[in-house]
Amino acid sequence: MAKHMSKRHTPETLAFTDGKLVLIDQTRLPQELVNLTCSTVNETHDAIKRLVVRGAPAIGIAAAYGVCLAAAPTQASRQDYLDAADHLATSRPTAVNLFWALDRMKAVIEATDDDSVLHENLVNEATKIHDEDREMCKNIGRNGASLLCESKCVLTHCNAGGLATSMWGTALAPIYHCHQQGQTIEVFADETRPLLQGGRLTAWELSQAGIPVTVLTDSMAGSLLRSGKIDAVIVGADRIAANGDVANKIGTYPLAVLARHHSVPFYVAAPSSTFDLNLADGSGIPIEERSRDEVAEPHGICVVPPDANVMNPAFDVTPAALIDSIITERGLIPQPNRTKVTAHLS
Amino acid sequence: MAKHMSKRHTPETLAFTDGKLVLIDQTRLPQELVNLTCSTVNETHDAIKRLVVRGAPAIGIAAAYGVCLAAAPTQASRQDYLDAADHLATSRPTAVNLFWALDRMKAVIEATDDDSVLHENLVNEATKIHDEDREMCKNIGRNGASLLCESKCVLTHCNAGGLATSMWGTALAPIYHCHQQGQTIEVFADETRPLLQGGRLTAWELSQAGIPVTVLTDSMAGSLLRSGKIDAVIVGADRIAANGDVANKIGTYPLAVLARHHSVPFYVAAPSSTFDLNLADGSGIPIEERSRDEVAEPHGICVVPPDANVMNPAFDVTPAALIDSIITERGLIPQPNRTKVTAHLS
Repeated sequence: MAKHMSKRHTPETLAFTDGKLVLIDQTRLPQELVNLTCSTVNETHDAIKRLVVRGAPAIGIAAAYGVCLAAAPTQASRQDYLDAADHLATSRPTAVNLFWALDRMKAVIEATDDDSVLHENLVNEATKIHDEDREMCKNIGRNGASLLCESKCVLTHCNAGGLATSMWGTALAPIYHCHQQGQTIEVFADETRPLLQGGRLTAWELSQAGIPVTVLTDSMAGSLLRSGKIDAVIVGADRIAANGDVANKIGTYPLAVLARHHSVPFYVAAPSSTFDLNLADGSGIPIEERSRDEVAEPHGICVVPPDANVMNPAFDVTPAALIDSIITERGLIPQPNRTKVTAHLS
Repeated sequence: MAKHMSKRHTPETLAFTDGKLVLIDQTRLPQELVNLTCSTVNETHDAIKRLVVRGAPAIGIAAAYGVCLAAAPTQASRQDYLDAADHLATSRPTAVNLFWALDRMKAVIEATDDDSVLHENLVNEATKIHDEDREMCKNIGRNGASLLCESKCVLTHCNAGGLATSMWGTALAPIYHCHQQGQTIEVFADETRPLLQGGRLTAWELSQAGIPVTVLTDSMAGSLLRSGKIDAVIVGADRIAANGDVANKIGTYPLAVLARHHSVPFYVAAPSSTFDLNLADGSGIPIEERSRDEVAEPHGICVVPPDANVMNPAFDVTPAALIDSIITERGLIPQPNRTKVTAHLS
């Protein structure tokens, strides 16, 4: 786990060590920092499904390493690896980086004629995806910092930080960049019900980095924005359609409406692997519906009577028109639309 | 507790029985329906502060009965009752109905020359406040129903139902009225972090009444409104300024912005005792800041690291311009402003 620790303030989100995938168990933060080791494809599938590892880029990296766990290196067949990729693709439906990473792994399987180097080639490809992610985070940090250089207070939602990627994150990368440049910057973090990734994860990693952070319930963002204290809102993305519509954690859309209502800029930070050019707009993005218990029984305590219904969509879609800029590792897409997205990615 | 049960579907929120104040302990719902009995002023103060009883009208009634508990009926002095009223006024700062009810109790103390009937007069005044509240709920129900007669799906926030008043509630009263008239109506209830009054209380009392209810996290209201499923949003109020600005549970303001963004009507239902004509606008309304633990340690589980800050304002202010109508027991105030509020209350 220590390979890249010197470059960051918190332990690594995930690592491939001794042929196993080692993950920070994010369901246990902030109470305790413990690892979970995946030795099989099924364990990796379960870890993604249970949000032991989460965040669109981190899911992609974890799934890529997961493919390598199809069987012992000398025993796995091409079919085992292809089956592993297909199975891992069923772990979560919304974040497109998962499918993007698995497609890269499948391409390696198809391009490798010599079975004896297949496992090695797959580990190399997963490692490359992982390495590219680190580079991506740094570049998003630098590109996004150009938008936040006047910002003292930034509001974010869910966790699009180091824990959602290999390091630094997407939405938090520009904040880390500004902080490292000596800029005084503080973060307000929506707790992000139902699973509280903002209160548990964003607040944890920013505190570890010495960046002041204040947690609020999602319902408090309205009056906070009205107070004039917030200079910018920045969030991550799980899938971006060809016209710039963004699927991200449930609660992102109302934040975008509120930011616009108060003339506060609203930014989305994501790697270019988050774009799904097969979808004309956000209406085609599949939205994961998660279990009733996440809302009705947090920590096993019944907070909704059994005869009441519960809805639990994990994501919502923010139309491009409400987004002031999309930040990628390649640069900025201000006032995104289909033409600009196409030009940016070509 | 059974005096008025025939008129409603759920047990009474509060009752004055055998010289004691009996409250449904709302902190225990929906897990269990248990009463808490207050025999003293301090116990009543504590019950209001801990939200055993909550909701602006119910707080006012509870405090009025609480004054009667200053001492044994034959032993309490005028000063004991005045001290009780002053002490109860410190229990919570935002809901103005508390001060309104206590002012009525103080006026009785001042108007009663014969000490031997003081306790009786105070119990009579508290009972009168309680009875008037029942009548108020019915009238708000009838008046508000005129706005909801075409509505199939209504979104509400927190609990402004029977549990927040003597019966029927304020925001929920029109829904109960429509339901009793045979109208098909269903409710979407924001869970209302941090204390989950929507998921715990609104969902519980609507389920008891056989009205379909779906609980959502506060962050889901944006995409729900965007879906076009919601016909109206209706909430209660803790204090309304002279110009129609409304203080209500945190999360009300963003809901008003989102409702306007989606051209969904936004209604506020409250008794006329909720108006504070001493305040020109909402900027003067004191907003209660509650404890860190409510956000950071729900059910005793740490969900925010100790070195992160937490904000916990219990209320926000919605400007009158975002409100389509205020519903009181007297009628409607469409597009409220200072002139209309003054005319409505005079």
